[in-house]
Amino acid sequence: MTVDIATLFPEMCEAVLSSSIIGRARAAGRLRVDCHDIRGFSEDKHRKVDDSPYGGGMGMVLGPVPIYNCFRYIERLRGARPHTVYLSPKGRVFSQRKAEELAQKENLLLLCGHYEGVDQRILDEMVDEELSIGDYVLTGGELGALVVVDAVGRLCEGVLSDASCYTEESHQGGLLEYPHYTRPPVWHGRAVPEVLLSGHHKNIARWRREESIRLTWERRPDMLAEAPLGRDDLLFLERLRAGEAGLEETEERKR
Amino acid sequence: MTVDIATLFPEMCEAVLSSSIIGRARAAGRLRVDCHDIRGFSEDKHRKVDDSPYGGGMGMVLGPVPIYNCFRYIERLRGARPHTVYLSPKGRVFSQRKAEELAQKENLLLLCGHYEGVDQRILDEMVDEELSIGDYVLTGGELGALVVVDAVGRLCEGVLSDASCYTEESHQGGLLEYPHYTRPPVWHGRAVPEVLLSGHHKNIARWRREESIRLTWERRPDMLAEAPLGRDDLLFLERLRAGEAGLEETEERKR
Repeated sequence: MTVDIATLFPEMCEAVLSSSIIGRARAAGRLRVDCHDIRGFSEDKHRKVDDSPYGGGMGMVLGPVPIYNCFRYIERLRGARPHTVYLSPKGRVFSQRKAEELAQKENLLLLCGHYEGVDQRILDEMVDEELSIGDYVLTGGELGALVVVDAVGRLCEGVLSDASCYTEESHQGGLLEYPHYTRPPVWHGRAVPEVLLSGHHKNIARWRREESIRLTWERRPDMLAEAPLGRDDLLFLERLRAGEAGLEETEERKR
Repeated sequence: MTVDIATLFPEMCEAVLSSSIIGRARAAGRLRVDCHDIRGFSEDKHRKVDDSPYGGGMGMVLGPVPIYNCFRYIERLRGARPHTVYLSPKGRVFSQRKAEELAQKENLLLLCGHYEGVDQRILDEMVDEELSIGDYVLTGGELGALVVVDAVGRLCEGVLSDASCYTEESHQGGLLEYPHYTRPPVWHGRAVPEVLLSGHHKNIARWRREESIRLTWERRPDMLAEAPLGRDDLLFLERLRAGEAGLEETEERKR
């Protein structure tokens, strides 16, 4: 897939996109992500891209012309109209399910607002959906776009080294992920849970499953309603709810 | 306030933190944000920071020793134990309210995991809370940390140019923000709403308020229950619900 980012801060986006897993996938040609400077599409001789809002108020609004020119440029570049997303706190909330949906698109365009936002007519004319990465306010849309590229990119074929790397993650199986432990076996008086040293695969799998359910129940009970739970899972959840499954131990651990 | 970020990718974080509004606030000394390379705190001669998980499975886990060394270094540097947040998809969900709470801390430490995550004992020993920026999986904690710095940083005194810049944003008043328009008055056959050109401040304020309520009702009805609504607002909401407030027009606009 190709992802284009239309932004006032292409260098900042580029720095993130050249790092780590996404950077390696781009270098290996497994993912194409290009950043475009909206300012370069201004028709103003001072490369102005913003103006005061009609109706008054603080802040500046990004005008429709440079953004639309940038959109048309990307459309020609890709030979097709890209699926266009505007990152904005007033969008619908981005989720793992939405990431999976966007990973199916051939061409994705992420538009980053800044200042007070963009002219509403741009949204009406060229944006397919507005997405928000969460219920908080950021100084611009760039971090949102980078979050979307990261979440979507890692789902694309060949980006992660092994498919199993992303089947047991939090949210992908409808539950939060179980705790991890590595060497040393005892650190600051804290020992790795015995079951993990037992070599007994079935018990380890059961322990991890139960810790996932316990954590989800403690922190995100809203997720349990939609999580695919088997018979053993439901019995464990019942014991948790009845206070019989060692919840006290988990709470104690923090002290 | 000071924010420290403990990460395997300090250059990537630094590139974002040097840009735009947060970059300007740092340069002006209004906000102190430092990035620390966890790898530099490894006691291994090859600067190794990760190891296989106990109990088996794919991926690598960040061990407790380098992270803890980094934590103790930052603690000495600041002369106080920082409020420590681990960015993780299994954390509680970050929100504007949490941003406001964190903006009150004197010293904040953001710990970024990578690979499969960090050893659970680090979380038990030094982390005050685990936060997730949303219900999706990312390749590491860095974007989460940058989102938290951005959302928290912009609330700190002197970071934004005028306090009113952040009183009418989406989520800050419990509603999504109204649409913005700037020049030209007609673009691609789409005119700016007449009321915004009227100069009638009271009508403009009322229009904006109603558009905020309409948008929140359409996209995020879950937010309405907690939004502070006055008598006029509630009457407008009743009209929306009865289909009498021109919802059709908004839906039409997109076509």
